[in-house]
Amino acid sequence: MPIPIDTFFLDPKFEGTLQQKIQRMISEGVLSGRFIPGAKLPSSRKLAVHLGISRITVTLAYSELVSDDYLIAKGRSGYYVSPTAPQRSRFETPKGVVTDCVDWNKAIGQRFSDQVMPEKPMDWRSYPYPFIYGQADDRIFDHSNWRQCALQALGKREFSTVTADSFERDDPELVKYIALNTLPRRGIHAKPEQILITMGAQNALWLCAHVLLNQRRMAAMENPGYPGLRVALNLARCTVASVPVDDCGMVLDALPAETDVVFTTPSHHCPTNVTMPLERRRALLELASRNDFIIVEDDYEFEMSFLNPPEPALKSLDEEGRVIYVGSFSKSLFPGLRLGYVVGSEVFIREARALRAAILRHPPGHLQRTAANFLSLGHYDALVARMGQIYRKRREIMQEAIARCGLESVGINVAGGSSFWIKTPEGVDARDLALALKDRGVLIEPGHVFFERPEDGARFFRIAYSSIESARISAGITLIAETLHSFGKR
Amino acid sequence: MPIPIDTFFLDPKFEGTLQQKIQRMISEGVLSGRFIPGAKLPSSRKLAVHLGISRITVTLAYSELVSDDYLIAKGRSGYYVSPTAPQRSRFETPKGVVTDCVDWNKAIGQRFSDQVMPEKPMDWRSYPYPFIYGQADDRIFDHSNWRQCALQALGKREFSTVTADSFERDDPELVKYIALNTLPRRGIHAKPEQILITMGAQNALWLCAHVLLNQRRMAAMENPGYPGLRVALNLARCTVASVPVDDCGMVLDALPAETDVVFTTPSHHCPTNVTMPLERRRALLELASRNDFIIVEDDYEFEMSFLNPPEPALKSLDEEGRVIYVGSFSKSLFPGLRLGYVVGSEVFIREARALRAAILRHPPGHLQRTAANFLSLGHYDALVARMGQIYRKRREIMQEAIARCGLESVGINVAGGSSFWIKTPEGVDARDLALALKDRGVLIEPGHVFFERPEDGARFFRIAYSSIESARISAGITLIAETLHSFGKR
Repeated sequence: MPIPIDTFFLDPKFEGTLQQKIQRMISEGVLSGRFIPGAKLPSSRKLAVHLGISRITVTLAYSELVSDDYLIAKGRSGYYVSPTAPQRSRFETPKGVVTDCVDWNKAIGQRFSDQVMPEKPMDWRSYPYPFIYGQADDRIFDHSNWRQCALQALGKREFSTVTADSFERDDPELVKYIALNTLPRRGIHAKPEQILITMGAQNALWLCAHVLLNQRRMAAMENPGYPGLRVALNLARCTVASVPVDDCGMVLDALPAETDVVFTTPSHHCPTNVTMPLERRRALLELASRNDFIIVEDDYEFEMSFLNPPEPALKSLDEEGRVIYVGSFSKSLFPGLRLGYVVGSEVFIREARALRAAILRHPPGHLQRTAANFLSLGHYDALVARMGQIYRKRREIMQEAIARCGLESVGINVAGGSSFWIKTPEGVDARDLALALKDRGVLIEPGHVFFERPEDGARFFRIAYSSIESARISAGITLIAETLHSFGKR
Repeated sequence: MPIPIDTFFLDPKFEGTLQQKIQRMISEGVLSGRFIPGAKLPSSRKLAVHLGISRITVTLAYSELVSDDYLIAKGRSGYYVSPTAPQRSRFETPKGVVTDCVDWNKAIGQRFSDQVMPEKPMDWRSYPYPFIYGQADDRIFDHSNWRQCALQALGKREFSTVTADSFERDDPELVKYIALNTLPRRGIHAKPEQILITMGAQNALWLCAHVLLNQRRMAAMENPGYPGLRVALNLARCTVASVPVDDCGMVLDALPAETDVVFTTPSHHCPTNVTMPLERRRALLELASRNDFIIVEDDYEFEMSFLNPPEPALKSLDEEGRVIYVGSFSKSLFPGLRLGYVVGSEVFIREARALRAAILRHPPGHLQRTAANFLSLGHYDALVARMGQIYRKRREIMQEAIARCGLESVGINVAGGSSFWIKTPEGVDARDLALALKDRGVLIEPGHVFFERPEDGARFFRIAYSSIESARISAGITLIAETLHSFGKR
């Protein structure tokens, strides 16, 4: 029984090649039961004419469908739906409409949705002036080599290694690369057993918080500080001490004596960008030794040190094994990758590994191997160098425009970074500013989300240059200044 | 200054093409500071002769290195290390050896490494008779189409979508496919807002446990049951009731009246494989309504129903919105993929999404898109059909060999599955059996890990046929029977 040719239409909404559209059309027809086993397909010539495409495309699609056993080829008589074609069983959904009879306010044992996290519009790319932080710039990223490395990781030879359930183990290639190449750049010496791969820095911080803290312990974090860390600490149910930050980073005198764990961002304080000088680092380590606390160093963005060589990590000065180091590839590769790592004492890493296994087993193997390939072929260092050059140029333009427009920049980083931290004039709330600017196509990040008490951050905002083209920066900063000015006149 | 040609050696241990080996050798030389900016490389002809490879390979590697700015080409005079080549800053590690001065027993706030999880040797592929559960069989998986779909997801057009930080959102393509195609196969109707993508089923169960439970609540799980669930429930600090299992699954009379959440595997009970019949499913739902508890249905492995069409999911019978459904692609695609999903009431999904964001943000975008492509092109259904055919054959051989050798199989699944649950004769501990068999090249899984009290499971073991070739099965089962027999004689 031939299938009538006019039942064939290509789905214009489906993104894919023409050949894939044909495959999808036919496999869907088979799976949905429209095309029954034994039914005869139109000849490739007829279907090609009907769809207005080349015959070879149809032929290639048909061969693919044969290898997936949707179709069989019968000599010269053509293609038929395979008698053993994949099928989908379908069930009637219950006749009665599902009415939610559960009192979810009662059923939910713990709430998580009330945590404050920065809101970023998903459509930020459509804004002409996206001073948005932490997104990849597609124009800089090295797509073709990344794809190449991904392909290699999915090659037959590596496939079994990277697709297996590796229980709690990480990809040895990636761990080795981090140990031998990435960490020495930060002055850190670590054995593979002291390294754990995580699903990005957020996952790393959450793991640290859960292993080191409990309801009877106290954590200290910078205020302002990274909101994702505050969320992780709240989930660990510990007491959280908010420690102020000055031009040299965390103010040590403000650390409560009973602190068990200090979380800090010495290289680039989040969000003000200040770098903690060597003297304060040594003082922090001495204090840790005296008061017997652990330090978790979040060394995000260290690669973005294009102005001066980066300071060695706090962990490189640590002679007592008190520092746990958190690194990430999200800023330098791309944030959707979600790969980071933790370096610390073996005893600690063992517990963090067990906790990671309990919540997600391990980060996907083939992502780990793709990253390992990209790193070991030198593409990563090339990318970081290229980003540094571009960021340096953007930063110069930013700095010039900020000075020209009279914006008040606070907390300059000596090494580079990817953003500026700006203070509004008296009486201007950065949230109002952000709203007004959004209407003019400018995205900035109001600073309240970084503060323990959001009202303390009402007069701050962050503007990043990691996702905005150089050519747009000056006009964008001018718009910010104009809008700020109009607020003053109200 | 030319770099002496005899400093060039290809790393035989590095897995990659010849061209990649050259790129790596040179980029490493530059990054490590051995090749300094301005140094002249050997001509491609000379290097090719020196390494004994073709000149075009060297030329291609040189061009790649130029595009990464490791090298520059100077007209006819050849290739030089670029003056702006990527650099690595290195620091001296502290002179004093790091002595761990921290009392980690005190510093660690919570221990996780004492959880019992099944141990599987990483080198299981080297055993001739791997009756191991839950690993991908490379011989069945459709590598080439998966690679194709991964490449498409990494194409320029989709790249920005899949590499961005999508905060808490999931890939809309994958969610849509699950809603429109996967769930209807289980009789489930769900809107995208009722679906959350997770890092595999373990992550899904952990999220459910943490949202629904707390220290004052009680969860019920099957005994024997999935050890990963027991770990997740312990982390949620709730009371855990262990409920026995008979030939129809969880015994409802044994459910404590104060249970808040019931975790169950109705399609294929883990590990005995029994299927819960319709009558018991209805009774469970009625009880849930009467006692006002929530049910989490772990529907792992439903695709492996090659003997009979799968029963519709418990959730498809749920008219009150009490069932939360957990699905996974780990068994049908490959376990290293780590993609699963949860389906439930919007209020619940909102909390689970917020918790997921706090621990890892979101599953990597390009894995989600690769899976969506693979599913929507029909490759997934083709793979499941192919696996079904192979598993059916293996199962027949297993069944025949088990009967012939007089092993005692308990809890047969009517739909298929991928394993058998076997009871040892009186007095034989399956752990001893497993150890003895390992020496003979046979891997089995002792059953104690599935039990609340490991000693209750001393006489059980699981043998899976998902990773062993048909041709090896019979000899493997014979070895198991022989070894069991020798235990009886001791």
